[in-house]
Amino acid sequence: MMPRSAFDLRLPEPLIASTVAGALAEDLGLAGDVTTDAVIAPEAIASGVFAARKPGIVAGLQVAAATFRHLDPEVRFDVLVPDGGTVEPGKIIARVSGNARALLTAERVALNFLGRLSGIATLTRRYVDAVAGTRAQIVDTRKTTPGLRAFEKYAVRAGGGMNHRIGLFDAVLIKDNHIAVAGGVGPAVAAARARVGHMVKIEVEVDTLDQLSEALQHRIDAVLLDNMTPDQLAEAVRIVAGRAITEASGGVNLDTVRAIAEAGVDLISVGALTHSATVLDIGLDIEVGTMA
Amino acid sequence: MMPRSAFDLRLPEPLIASTVAGALAEDLGLAGDVTTDAVIAPEAIASGVFAARKPGIVAGLQVAAATFRHLDPEVRFDVLVPDGGTVEPGKIIARVSGNARALLTAERVALNFLGRLSGIATLTRRYVDAVAGTRAQIVDTRKTTPGLRAFEKYAVRAGGGMNHRIGLFDAVLIKDNHIAVAGGVGPAVAAARARVGHMVKIEVEVDTLDQLSEALQHRIDAVLLDNMTPDQLAEAVRIVAGRAITEASGGVNLDTVRAIAEAGVDLISVGALTHSATVLDIGLDIEVGTMA
Amino acid sequence: MMPRSAFDLRLPEPLIASTVAGALAEDLGLAGDVTTDAVIAPEAIASGVFAARKPGIVAGLQVAAATFRHLDPEVRFDVLVPDGGTVEPGKIIARVSGNARALLTAERVALNFLGRLSGIATLTRRYVDAVAGTRAQIVDTRKTTPGLRAFEKYAVRAGGGMNHRIGLFDAVLIKDNHIAVAGGVGPAVAAARARVGHMVKIEVEVDTLDQLSEALQHRIDAVLLDNMTPDQLAEAVRIVAGRAITEASGGVNLDTVRAIAEAGVDLISVGALTHSATVLDIGLDIEVGTMA
Amino acid sequence: MMPRSAFDLRLPEPLIASTVAGALAEDLGLAGDVTTDAVIAPEAIASGVFAARKPGIVAGLQVAAATFRHLDPEVRFDVLVPDGGTVEPGKIIARVSGNARALLTAERVALNFLGRLSGIATLTRRYVDAVAGTRAQIVDTRKTTPGLRAFEKYAVRAGGGMNHRIGLFDAVLIKDNHIAVAGGVGPAVAAARARVGHMVKIEVEVDTLDQLSEALQHRIDAVLLDNMTPDQLAEAVRIVAGRAITEASGGVNLDTVRAIAEAGVDLISVGALTHSATVLDIGLDIEVGTMA
Amino acid sequence: MMPRSAFDLRLPEPLIASTVAGALAEDLGLAGDVTTDAVIAPEAIASGVFAARKPGIVAGLQVAAATFRHLDPEVRFDVLVPDGGTVEPGKIIARVSGNARALLTAERVALNFLGRLSGIATLTRRYVDAVAGTRAQIVDTRKTTPGLRAFEKYAVRAGGGMNHRIGLFDAVLIKDNHIAVAGGVGPAVAAARARVGHMVKIEVEVDTLDQLSEALQHRIDAVLLDNMTPDQLAEAVRIVAGRAITEASGGVNLDTVRAIAEAGVDLISVGALTHSATVLDIGLDIEVGTMA
Amino acid sequence: MMPRSAFDLRLPEPLIASTVAGALAEDLGLAGDVTTDAVIAPEAIASGVFAARKPGIVAGLQVAAATFRHLDPEVRFDVLVPDGGTVEPGKIIARVSGNARALLTAERVALNFLGRLSGIATLTRRYVDAVAGTRAQIVDTRKTTPGLRAFEKYAVRAGGGMNHRIGLFDAVLIKDNHIAVAGGVGPAVAAARARVGHMVKIEVEVDTLDQLSEALQHRIDAVLLDNMTPDQLAEAVRIVAGRAITEASGGVNLDTVRAIAEAGVDLISVGALTHSATVLDIGLDIEVGTMA
Repeated sequence: MMPRSAFDLRLPEPLIASTVAGALAEDLGLAGDVTTDAVIAPEAIASGVFAARKPGIVAGLQVAAATFRHLDPEVRFDVLVPDGGTVEPGKIIARVSGNARALLTAERVALNFLGRLSGIATLTRRYVDAVAGTRAQIVDTRKTTPGLRAFEKYAVRAGGGMNHRIGLFDAVLIKDNHIAVAGGVGPAVAAARARVGHMVKIEVEVDTLDQLSEALQHRIDAVLLDNMTPDQLAEAVRIVAGRAITEASGGVNLDTVRAIAEAGVDLISVGALTHSATVLDIGLDIEVGTMA
Repeated sequence: MMPRSAFDLRLPEPLIASTVAGALAEDLGLAGDVTTDAVIAPEAIASGVFAARKPGIVAGLQVAAATFRHLDPEVRFDVLVPDGGTVEPGKIIARVSGNARALLTAERVALNFLGRLSGIATLTRRYVDAVAGTRAQIVDTRKTTPGLRAFEKYAVRAGGGMNHRIGLFDAVLIKDNHIAVAGGVGPAVAAARARVGHMVKIEVEVDTLDQLSEALQHRIDAVLLDNMTPDQLAEAVRIVAGRAITEASGGVNLDTVRAIAEAGVDLISVGALTHSATVLDIGLDIEVGTMA
Repeated sequence: MMPRSAFDLRLPEPLIASTVAGALAEDLGLAGDVTTDAVIAPEAIASGVFAARKPGIVAGLQVAAATFRHLDPEVRFDVLVPDGGTVEPGKIIARVSGNARALLTAERVALNFLGRLSGIATLTRRYVDAVAGTRAQIVDTRKTTPGLRAFEKYAVRAGGGMNHRIGLFDAVLIKDNHIAVAGGVGPAVAAARARVGHMVKIEVEVDTLDQLSEALQHRIDAVLLDNMTPDQLAEAVRIVAGRAITEASGGVNLDTVRAIAEAGVDLISVGALTHSATVLDIGLDIEVGTMA
Repeated sequence: MMPRSAFDLRLPEPLIASTVAGALAEDLGLAGDVTTDAVIAPEAIASGVFAARKPGIVAGLQVAAATFRHLDPEVRFDVLVPDGGTVEPGKIIARVSGNARALLTAERVALNFLGRLSGIATLTRRYVDAVAGTRAQIVDTRKTTPGLRAFEKYAVRAGGGMNHRIGLFDAVLIKDNHIAVAGGVGPAVAAARARVGHMVKIEVEVDTLDQLSEALQHRIDAVLLDNMTPDQLAEAVRIVAGRAITEASGGVNLDTVRAIAEAGVDLISVGALTHSATVLDIGLDIEVGTMA
Repeated sequence: MMPRSAFDLRLPEPLIASTVAGALAEDLGLAGDVTTDAVIAPEAIASGVFAARKPGIVAGLQVAAATFRHLDPEVRFDVLVPDGGTVEPGKIIARVSGNARALLTAERVALNFLGRLSGIATLTRRYVDAVAGTRAQIVDTRKTTPGLRAFEKYAVRAGGGMNHRIGLFDAVLIKDNHIAVAGGVGPAVAAARARVGHMVKIEVEVDTLDQLSEALQHRIDAVLLDNMTPDQLAEAVRIVAGRAITEASGGVNLDTVRAIAEAGVDLISVGALTHSATVLDIGLDIEVGTMA
Repeated sequence: MMPRSAFDLRLPEPLIASTVAGALAEDLGLAGDVTTDAVIAPEAIASGVFAARKPGIVAGLQVAAATFRHLDPEVRFDVLVPDGGTVEPGKIIARVSGNARALLTAERVALNFLGRLSGIATLTRRYVDAVAGTRAQIVDTRKTTPGLRAFEKYAVRAGGGMNHRIGLFDAVLIKDNHIAVAGGVGPAVAAARARVGHMVKIEVEVDTLDQLSEALQHRIDAVLLDNMTPDQLAEAVRIVAGRAITEASGGVNLDTVRAIAEAGVDLISVGALTHSATVLDIGLDIEVGTMA
């Protein structure tokens, strides 16, 4: 039996390529890296070392490597600590070597990807560790940075979390407005069931135990228990009794997540994983050869 | 004489349009919002209220409005607190009304933009307030989210900060590697000066006062004083004596920024503005009409 | 309780817009409609009638309308028989009126969309009708035209079918190769379960009843019964006993589908819906005003 | 003198690249092939064999190869039966080998291209064979799948057919509406002649022999004889007497095409080649190595 | 009978839209028009007058109008001298009014299009006038600015010229290399004839009268007489005797074009129309309202 | 100390790649190079020589090489005279060899880039030579071809000129309209200064010496002296006295530029460099192997 390594679900290479191209275009504009081009000879070579400056979890090395290679396919990128690995300050994560202009020009964009994704992985791991020993898994939300959803959901996996639905298109999540307009949970679930395919799961958001009981009268795959106290959650889990996946949401932070997990829910969704992670401080020290 | 309002420098509408289109495509995929389309009638209408849940500075309303209008150009969006305005919890920021499907489907993407940009504006304002009364301006860096640089730099302006260079292309910033390869500050500045146009400014990064003295022997527009103590910065400002713009960088946080500012520098650049801002919590309450 | 109308799941408007733009660019090239521009005055107006020439089911009117409006937003398009409606030869489906050049230039592209999607809806309806009264639903596959998957899956819904997974990304389908490499169904399911989120369903493809029994020992959402006879399928349904959704696949055509359905499976997936539908013959008669 | 091999007119590689990229993006979404990534080790290798399951004509191998290589440029693709070649059931068309994930992930998209284009080539060949020994050539129309016109016209060539104009931009085809608005064939031809360049041919559509006679009074390159009986066509060919290329159109199917050809026309245009071809059944059997 | 007005063949609107969007993005970058946004109030209005500063022919007003409207769809653009019209210094060509920021920001891009296209139209007209009274038409070449071929060929039509083939795809032009490789004109023409459709014309380039005689033994639509003297051209026209369109090319300038035309050729192709036209000097005077 | 070689500021490779792709797509359309594909065998090889036919300065070899390699990455391209080098008629600039179809198909697009950019470099060099020995540098403007600004500004550098601002976004240029609306130079400069960052330079356009004096009372980086006589310019330079960079503009041509330079200005901006350069005549002679 293989160990769980959720981040085996890699980012599609074509998606990396187009996102990296956009990020470099943003930084290069029409004129490119005028400082480096003015000072560094085209044929100069260089090498660099990525090292952690803070403890955390690494994520995004595949993207960082692609950034350098977009400017020069010959750049060599050697990974020492793979995505999902733990680092302490000073730990060398990867080495990069090749054309000096490519290294200096891509440096900031590569670090922007790597620091941001590692920051998400690091925060995710803190939540995952906080619920260790419970049955609860930490899952993300759609509260991601526009344009980077696939990347940020990958980083959550690298940190040991799991992914909620990708977007509006791959699963049904019936919320208060849908229920109100449909005239109750039943009609809302029926409306969805009649329209979506058999591979699409349906989850219903409930705010109260009464709503929960009503929801469970219909065939649903998961129930989102919104803004409940640990005691309410425990009662909800008892009511559900395995008939649906239970997800806690709302008011989750590192202080509250353990108690929520101990209420026995299957999942805890945490918007903060992606909307409030800060960058993991990773440095890149580059050494260059001769002048232009 | 008009009051300073740096965020008058708006985001170009075509840039907003393409970024919003990408963000919605990411969330809609090929199948769209299957929940809403299954439950909400095509002709249903709705209205919603954006309200702050935490104190902060608003930024991104133009982008949020464009998100709804991308799905339905008839959506009405009324701003009550404009970008740059201060909000307290409960304060209503904007109202939106129109087609219910458009409102429910665009809700999360609009909030992702608005929360993130307002988070940056809010953090920026904290730094700006921290240096109030000094000559120092707070400026951003290139440590931005890939794909959103223009948006995040706009948010910094909305928070009262100023922008450093946009990318690698619009200004010269000579760093240690460039100096080492060129054989000194002088040759590096000369190499840049010989190649870039008269509208491009040149800034040099120095780590020591000796380097500073050397740098000042050449015609430079600004000097980046990296990782210096307030005492060193004060000495540096004295040495520069108005011959260049002085920028402090490195080790800047809300605890240290005041002392740095009081050293007399013109600018303090803060990577955290964009790489470590968390989202400002803004909610959108939507009320919908009849069912599909 | 609302009637089932699966095609309420509309195509996202932005997706229609970009696909229509691509289709028109393909037909217009750099020079546009040289015939029409040479002969028809810019200000001439025209009107047209879409009429069925064969019996069938309509799908794609939203796309056809968008095609004309891409060339002139003022074009009026009135639907008489909505998507999903049945038509007999001579039946008027829609009327279009507006700028004559826009109508003549967009005519073929609009018909290419409409005829193709209506052809899929029509073929789907024949399969749906063939299994009427059984519990079986007709579902599509990933055997779609490159670039038009969302459109073709929409047409399947318009014909009364349901959609299988959209692509490789929104559901797990474990096939023979995956099972062989994993060392059995169990390890393969475990590997998937450990990596995908709680909103992702898992289906396993089996060729024999022995494989089926093994598969059922694991927590799976659906089972694809590949290339089985109706007798084998009936036995399989008995074995499954409601523990998973049952899907028949392989060797399905209009001659065999009824017997397969009567075996009691939940779903029958039919590649032919999209890979072997022929166009539904729909004509557009346009009348124009004065010459250029 | 070289043998006719019309499919020497290859598809431009850049066009293949962008179309393949779009097709894979459609299937991979943001999350990629979750099944394969969860189960198959990144370093596993595999090989596969493309074999015909029905008799037909092959087309699209260049595109299929590009699909695999888009995911991994190292994939090897060996062609045994080139485009335009005839296959019987069981005949091996090509072999592919390389990274196992790349093979499994690209499989369906590659087959979607190959089956569809081979289906068009196969149907085209049936028409071409049906008119063997006559002077008539089989040509396509603009009734193609949006987004795939170049590919489908290539497939027609692979099947032995010839291409009509590519789009609205590269040739003039004057139809009834143009004639009506212009006040007759003469003014319509004159209007076109005055505006298009010397490399653009002009064809006129006529429904009757009277219209034909009128059309021939003007300098036209080709005449489209619409919906005429074989007798009318023969009379039309006699009237034209070599002054223009003669093209028959309308009511063409495999039952009628021979008689139409024997009427002596130069060309028979057949919308069905592209709008009513079904996929040629081609299978891909892949064998994989070790697990993730 | 209608007057010749070749520029009735308009530019496709979608092509204008995408090209204008690209041109504005190039000028606006990520930060937009920082000068105008800093100084001009968002609600300020303005109006402007396009006036010729040199005599010439106007082309590109549709593109100029689209440039302003891309920034603000409400901008009003009134044409006084349409494309193809003649202007003298001081002549007012068009008026524009609307949002002041939109006018000031789009001004340069609109003028860049208008000046360049009018420059081509103006130079074309000089060649057209130079051959007035002869049978020769002036045609363009593929020596156009990358990215602007459709626009520049439109400008040639506006100046009274005609268009040669659009690109490599819509007509056959057999040159010396093709002939050499094919082993003569005959095999080259046969190779092309066997592969291209009936709507594609074939032209052969010849350098000598001997080559011309050989070429005429094959069924060709046009012959390009390269680098011949007027006397040789006259002899060539005599030899052709109406069996093909005759096109002179090479060594054409305003001093030589009349003699070439008088040799009796049908067409004279002039690379200079697009590769050596200079801008027509057109000014835009804008008046603005109040400050930001 | 290194020699000045302003064109060391290369074009970003990703920008070259996308522009070349667009240019080839424009020429290839959906059908590709039908002539070459019909006549030249896929495996044929060829070689070619780029030679100048007129004297001038070369620019664009990196782009020309990329054009061939876009069609076949194996194409070899050897530079004999690098960008910025001077050529006389007959001088060999570069050699290209590889797949014959790739060479013949890319030929015209490569030459369109190379001829146009070399034309700009050549004209720039004439202006640069005309002011030799003075302090004046020749700079470009925003009067560039839409879509090619980066390329044309690169060509100006190759010719020995320098670049003005790239677009509207990287520098402030306050013109008459801005001054009028702001109520004077002072308020306009203040408005800009309050909004743009410290790395953005501010230039003010003045028409008279009075305006100049007013402008100099504010902290500006450069002053654009518009349409002044050499005498006025000399007086302006005297007034400025080194407090700002002085730029002359308006009425500049090869007859007037020397006198303007001798007035002592730092810069002379010349719109003609990009809006009125004609192509440098460069030929490519290709020799091919065997037939298809």
